[in-house]
Parts: sequence; C-alpha cells; structure tokens
Amino acid sequence: MSANLRECSHLKLHELPATDGSPAGHDNGHGDPHSREEWVRDRIGGQNVTQMHYARRGIVSPEMTYVAQREQLDPELIRSEVACGRMIIPANMHHTRLEPIAIGIEARCKINANIGNSSVTSDIGSELQKLQLAIRYGAHTAMDLSTGGNIPEIRQAIIDNSPVPIGTVPIYEAMAKVECIEELSIDLLLETIAAQAEQGVDYMTIHAGVLREYVPLTANRVTGIVSRGGAILAQWMKHHKKQNMLYDHFDEICEIFKKHDVCFSLGDGLRPGSLADANDDAQFRELDTLGELTLRAWEHDVQVMIEGPGHVPMHLVAMNVEREMEVCHEAPFYVLGPLVTDVAPGYDHITSAIGAAIAGQAGASLLCYVTPKEHLGLPDADDVRQGVIAYRIAAHAADVARGRQGARDWDDALSRARFQFDWNGQFELAMDPEGARAMHDETLPDETHKGARYCSMCGPKFCSMRLTTDLRAAAAEPAEELAASSG
Amino acid sequence: MSANLRECSHLKLHELPATDGSPAGHDNGHGDPHSREEWVRDRIGGQNVTQMHYARRGIVSPEMTYVAQREQLDPELIRSEVACGRMIIPANMHHTRLEPIAIGIEARCKINANIGNSSVTSDIGSELQKLQLAIRYGAHTAMDLSTGGNIPEIRQAIIDNSPVPIGTVPIYEAMAKVECIEELSIDLLLETIAAQAEQGVDYMTIHAGVLREYVPLTANRVTGIVSRGGAILAQWMKHHKKQNMLYDHFDEICEIFKKHDVCFSLGDGLRPGSLADANDDAQFRELDTLGELTLRAWEHDVQVMIEGPGHVPMHLVAMNVEREMEVCHEAPFYVLGPLVTDVAPGYDHITSAIGAAIAGQAGASLLCYVTPKEHLGLPDADDVRQGVIAYRIAAHAADVARGRQGARDWDDALSRARFQFDWNGQFELAMDPEGARAMHDETLPDETHKGARYCSMCGPKFCSMRLTTDLRAAAAEPAEELAASSG
Repeated sequence: MSANLRECSHLKLHELPATDGSPAGHDNGHGDPHSREEWVRDRIGGQNVTQMHYARRGIVSPEMTYVAQREQLDPELIRSEVACGRMIIPANMHHTRLEPIAIGIEARCKINANIGNSSVTSDIGSELQKLQLAIRYGAHTAMDLSTGGNIPEIRQAIIDNSPVPIGTVPIYEAMAKVECIEELSIDLLLETIAAQAEQGVDYMTIHAGVLREYVPLTANRVTGIVSRGGAILAQWMKHHKKQNMLYDHFDEICEIFKKHDVCFSLGDGLRPGSLADANDDAQFRELDTLGELTLRAWEHDVQVMIEGPGHVPMHLVAMNVEREMEVCHEAPFYVLGPLVTDVAPGYDHITSAIGAAIAGQAGASLLCYVTPKEHLGLPDADDVRQGVIAYRIAAHAADVARGRQGARDWDDALSRARFQFDWNGQFELAMDPEGARAMHDETLPDETHKGARYCSMCGPKFCSMRLTTDLRAAAAEPAEELAASSG
Repeated sequence: MSANLRECSHLKLHELPATDGSPAGHDNGHGDPHSREEWVRDRIGGQNVTQMHYARRGIVSPEMTYVAQREQLDPELIRSEVACGRMIIPANMHHTRLEPIAIGIEARCKINANIGNSSVTSDIGSELQKLQLAIRYGAHTAMDLSTGGNIPEIRQAIIDNSPVPIGTVPIYEAMAKVECIEELSIDLLLETIAAQAEQGVDYMTIHAGVLREYVPLTANRVTGIVSRGGAILAQWMKHHKKQNMLYDHFDEICEIFKKHDVCFSLGDGLRPGSLADANDDAQFRELDTLGELTLRAWEHDVQVMIEGPGHVPMHLVAMNVEREMEVCHEAPFYVLGPLVTDVAPGYDHITSAIGAAIAGQAGASLLCYVTPKEHLGLPDADDVRQGVIAYRIAAHAADVARGRQGARDWDDALSRARFQFDWNGQFELAMDPEGARAMHDETLPDETHKGARYCSMCGPKFCSMRLTTDLRAAAAEPAEELAASSG
C-alpha cells in the first residue's frame, strides 16, 4: 500500500459497505458477514419497531450508532434527523445481514442500483452477479425490480446476499399473480406487501399518489405515463371507476410497515418521461398528494422518502428538489437521474448523471442510477458497472459541492498522488482501480512505468507536472529567486 | 426514413457539419467538399482580413451569412456580435475547405475534440482517423496538439481534411525545434506562429497571460502548473529572469493574426489541475491579464476567445463563467471540462461533462472535451467517440437549459418516436444511431422487434407506454369517461 493510500484509506472505505458484497459463506477477506441478530432480538413481536419510533422516543438505536460512525456524525444528530423525518435508515428487522446506511440531507449522498429480471430475459444467477458488482463498485442500495420467473425466490437470494438495503415495487409481484391488470385487488396487494415485509425488504415503492383525478392531466403529454406502477394503477382505476386502492388503504400499509420497519419510497407514478412533460400539473399534483401521505405515514412513525423525476432540463432540476422539500416536509428526496436531454439513448448514464449531480447538489439524498441501456433493453453486468460509477461520480461531486464532512479529502489525496507520479497510489485511490490501471497499461504496460515521471498523453518532454516539480526543486536552492519576483 | 425523422431531419443536420468529415477526394454522399475559395479571393494580400474587421466596418461577410443560416439567426445579429467581440468565427483565409461555425453566447454551444500525437505514440493515419471520427460524432472544432513526429506535415493533412476549424498550440511545435526549453526565443515563436497561420490554422492557444510575477503564486498548490504551455513558459522565465515573451511581443502576434484571420485562444497556463487549486490567486490574476490582452487584440480587430479551467467543484463553475465575462469583456469562454471531482480517472469524460454542462448553461461558448483516458494516456479512436458524445450531451443540455432556438425540438422529436414505438425513428434521431441500435439488438435483434410495442427492459406486460396508449385509445371512444373524473 502506498503512502498516499495509507494516509487516506479511510476516505474510500467509508464510502463503501464494510464488506464487499460477496455472497454469505464466501470468505471475502473481511471476516464473517455482519449480522444484526443481536440488535433486533428484543424487537421480535413488537407493534412498532421503526427507527423513527425509537428516535422519537429519544432512543439511539444500534443502527443509528452504526450509521453515525460511517457518516462521521454525532449519533444524537442522526437520532434527531430520523425523528423529524429528514433522514431515514432503511433497515427491515428481518434483514439481519444488513450494514445500515443513512439517507438524508445531513448524510453523504447515496446511490441506488436497479437489478432484477424482466419477463423477457435474465435469471437468478446473473441477478446476483449484478448485485455483487453493484455493491463492489459502490452502490449504497439496490432495488429488485424482477417482474418474471420465481420472484420471491430471486428476492430471498438477493436479501440473503446483500449488506445494502433492498427495495422493491410490490405491485410488480402482484401483477405476476394475475392474468390482467383488472384482476388486481387490495387484498392481493396487502398480502404481497406483507409477505415481502416478512422476507426482509427494507423499502418499498408504493404509488399511492396516482389519484384518479390526475390521470386526465397526462392526456396531452408527449410520453404519457412512463412509470410502470403508475400506468398499471391508471388502467385499474379506469376499469373499476374507483380511486387508487393504495391511497384508500394507505393506513393498512403503514400497519404492515411499522411491524417490520419497512420504509416508504412514495412512488412518482406520474413522473415525466421526456423534457416536454417535465414540471406539468400531473407531476406536481401527485407531489402534493405525496406530501399529504408523508404526514400520514409519520403519524404511524413509519419512515418515508419521496421519489422524483425522471426527465428534467438542467435549469429546472434544483427547483424540483426545492419544491419537494417544501411540499413533502423535507422527507428525503430519491431522484431517478434526472436525464437532462432525451436525445442520447445508449448514453443515458451520462445524460442522467448530469441531472443527478445537480439534484444532489440541491439536496437530493438518494440518486437512482440509470444505465447506458435505459430505454433500449435490460442492463447486463457491464451496464451495471457503468451506471454505478457514473452515479458515484455524481453523488461525490454533490458531496464536495455541499461541503460535506471529509468529502474533498479524497480528491486532494488522489491529486497529491498524481502530482507525485505515484501511479500505483493513484490507481488504488481511484473510484475504479482496475479500470484506471488497465487504461494506463494500454500504452505503458511495464511495472517500471508505474514510477515514470510522465505518461503517454504528453510524453516526458512535455509533462507539466514534472516541469513544475523541477521548478520547485530549483527554487528551493536559491530561495530568493521566485519570491523576489512576487508581489 | 421514418416520418418522425423526416419531420425533423433539420434538427440533427444543423448540429453537424454540412459534410461528414471524410477526406477530400472521397465521395461522401454530400457532393464536393465545400470551398471558400471565392469568398477569400479578394482578401489575398489584405492588411486586415479578420471577420471582426469586416464586422466593425458594417460588412456582413459570406462567413457571417453562412453561420447565420446554421444557427437560424439574423446575419445582422451575427455581424454585431462579431463586431463587439462577443462572438468569433474562426476562419483562417487559407483554410478554404472550412465550413465556418460561430462561437459565442448567442450561438449554440460548441464542442472541441483534441487530437494529435505525442512524442511517445501515434501516427498521421490514426490522427486523421480520430479527426474523421470526432467530426462524424459531432465535434464542431478540433485542436491538433501534436508534439512529435513531422508536426507540420500532420497539421497540413488535418487542415486539408477538415471542414471544422482547427486550433493549435504553437509553442509545442517550437519546442520540437530546440534541445531544451531555455533555447526558446521570441523569433522562433513568431516564425512558428507565422508558418502555422500561413498553413491555415484557424485559432491558436497563446499563453500570454502567464506573467513572471504569477508563477510564485503556484508554489503551494497541490498540483502546481498543469498546462504544458504554462509550465514551459514558467521554466523559461525562471532561467532567463525575463517577462513572458508572448506578453512582451503580443502586438507582433496580432500583426500576424490579422493578415490571415487567426483567432486568439488566450491560454490559461495557470489553470487549476485539481479541486484544491481551483479559484486561487494564480488562476484569477492570469484571468485579469487575459482581459487586458483581449482589449489589445481587439484594437487590432483580431478575434479572441478565453480558455478556462480545468478542475472546479460544481458550486464554483457558474461563478467562473460569470467572472470571465466580467473580466474579459464578454469574449467567448472556452472551458476544458471542468472536472467536478478528481477521484475518477478512467471516467473523466463523465466527471468533466457534468462541469461542462453547467458551464454551458452559465454561458460558456465552447467546451473542450476530455476523454476517458485523460490523466492516464493518449486517447485512441474509441476514447474520442466517448469524449465527443459526452460533450455533445453537455452542450445540447446547455442549449436546452438556455432556451436556444430550436434546441428542445430534437428532444421532443425523439420522445415522440419513443412513445410511438417507432424504434427505427428513435435510432435515427439518436445522437449515436449505430450505438443505440446495437444496444437494442443485444436483446431483441430481429427486425420485427423494431416495431414491437415493448423492449426487453420491462417486457410486453409491463410496458408503461403501451398501457398509456391503450388507455388513451379507450378514452377516445367513450369520450366522457376520463374527462368526467377531471377537475
């Protein structure tokens, strides 16, 4: 380990899960997988076991202490943020392998990776591979969006193997149990939600804000309704001529959530699917309803975050974050990108990382990644890597811009290694060490080049940093020289 | 060609050069390469042939008319912007194959691709390939940064084959003519600049603002001086105990530039090379000097743009653009990225596209791309593709955010094609048509799938856009249904 890395090894480690996401049972070099069994033993059978419930009674839970250490923040601050709803700790009592994280404006910005198969393609093995890859590259949470195959079995495997919180969209599994949308019922949905809560899902997307009266507001949109959950519920409401059943039965969902400590991720079923549809009435009226539901969930001490768009031009991103904070009482904001242009399918990890970075700077707490394959197909393992790295860049840039504790230290450490031509140190500190080393190897593969005072970009004669170093060394001898010409 | 593409084929075409950048002599399907020979015939031997000179005398040149058409702006607006220095048209009289472009806040945001070999690697054939690739993917200008091999020959081949303006950094070629930095002289530099101007270089980076008294201000920087030109001049000034010769002889450079119409790209030799060094005294005092030099160049009616950082945290990007406008009298700003974090070598096309998009939104006029290989090695052809696409995304997102004429039409056209499941139309409208099609082919390769009302991401049952379409179709029959539930 190089001197540069040793000095600041904490910088990268606090960004990553304490273990590397290898499956339980495999020796991953970090010792046994973390277990919360002791932490949750006393909670079994409790009527309300949410982090918010403990926080509001003045209790600093083991989970709060744990995330305080990871964030380098005072445990009492964590408790008070969770109590007022500005921070959540998604930590289902039954997800004992979990290494908890904090999502909220006082914590570092987090990123989510979506995995899960579709009914067209993918299997359990490749989904687990995507999970491990996402965690290795630094995803802080993962959502299992499986819509086909043996959904409960895939989910159980994912929870069992995941040190990061797992989220789901229960209506997808419910859909797999019926022939058509019209057959969906509240009993089926509540039963599905309860089963997932008992399995250990840490947060669930519930599209309870898609009210019947908002659907016509999408009639003139360029891309209509692009949320799968939103489109399913719109169809169901039209057929049954009834209000959204998730809205009507919201308190029953809260009752399930508080028994296991599941967080709401209040879904934005009417989010815009194109720049043309951004910031329209459908989007903002749904947001108003999500604000109302936030207060209802908080009456049950159930933790809440709010999902946000989608596709938003750059100049409207910050105002979307500010509006969410105002309307939803500062519940953490969980944004999907947003993409700042629609014209680059195949590169939407980049179009959306721009929006995500700006959203993070404005105060969004969790950034849902978008992979290069978005709009074109189901992502494979390499798409997951590219999506995760693009979003870690966005989240870290936001942390730096907001001046979060210790964030800039990582940049400074890497830059010092760069200036010292400590190539190995630079690789080790890089967000993707293997990737950086491989690119350097392409033109200067020998190990001796890892000490070279130049690279192939400029060559030895033109290396500005070598010239600066020489200049400084020369200046150190006749000390008056450079100083004399100053001021 | 699909209906969607036909409707808005102008959208993409106005973004691209009129020809596709194939070498002269090859039939590229656009007929003969463009030639400015007639436009410049009368200028031969003129004492001042700059666009600014004509503009200030009230003349709308053929170049101004040409760029007005490309930008969909009034030629008189172009003339007045060029006259006041807020816009430049880099168009060396000898670069007759050029298809001129406008760089300035009233025009669409432009992007530059750096090509050129280093003394370590690369050759003329691969540099021409990079040029053609950069132009095909949409670079608006290219800089030949060659530092080794037969530099004049490489440059001539690039100019002869380029419909886009070509920029250089003449001190690189001068360096190749001497044994060591100390041997550089103003005569050698002026001779090199004159030869390049006669060859047809459209703009040149001149680091005339790196004053001797600013160099000590970099002493405590984390990454010192990272501009090659800046480092060379600092070394030269230290050895000779003299002021920067490019500053002392600035008017002589203006004399050469006005005879051929070469634009200044006033170099930022003291730009920050890390977040730690951003916005320091060295950077801003040099900027003050660039503002002074701008006025001097304008006294000669020589066109100017200003180069800017580099590495800047997100929250300081917009203020950098605003400060440049104030200090440099609204001369167009040409930024390198900036990277918003230092921690992701291998992905610096993304770290910098975030900064570039924000800079473009704030008013930067030309964005110099950074490839994934930055800091690690010389980019290859695929790095060029990735860099160009990332920067077109940044520039287009900025155009949309600033509400520039027609920019959003492209997004809307692609989104309409997407909603209509017009897959081929979506690919054709995409920034990288082949790339988008190839990703779709990975999971649904058959041509029949290009009419499918779903993709492998969600599968047929879960396609929200199909559901919305069905919902709208159903709503159209019993028309009262959806309307009744509204309001």
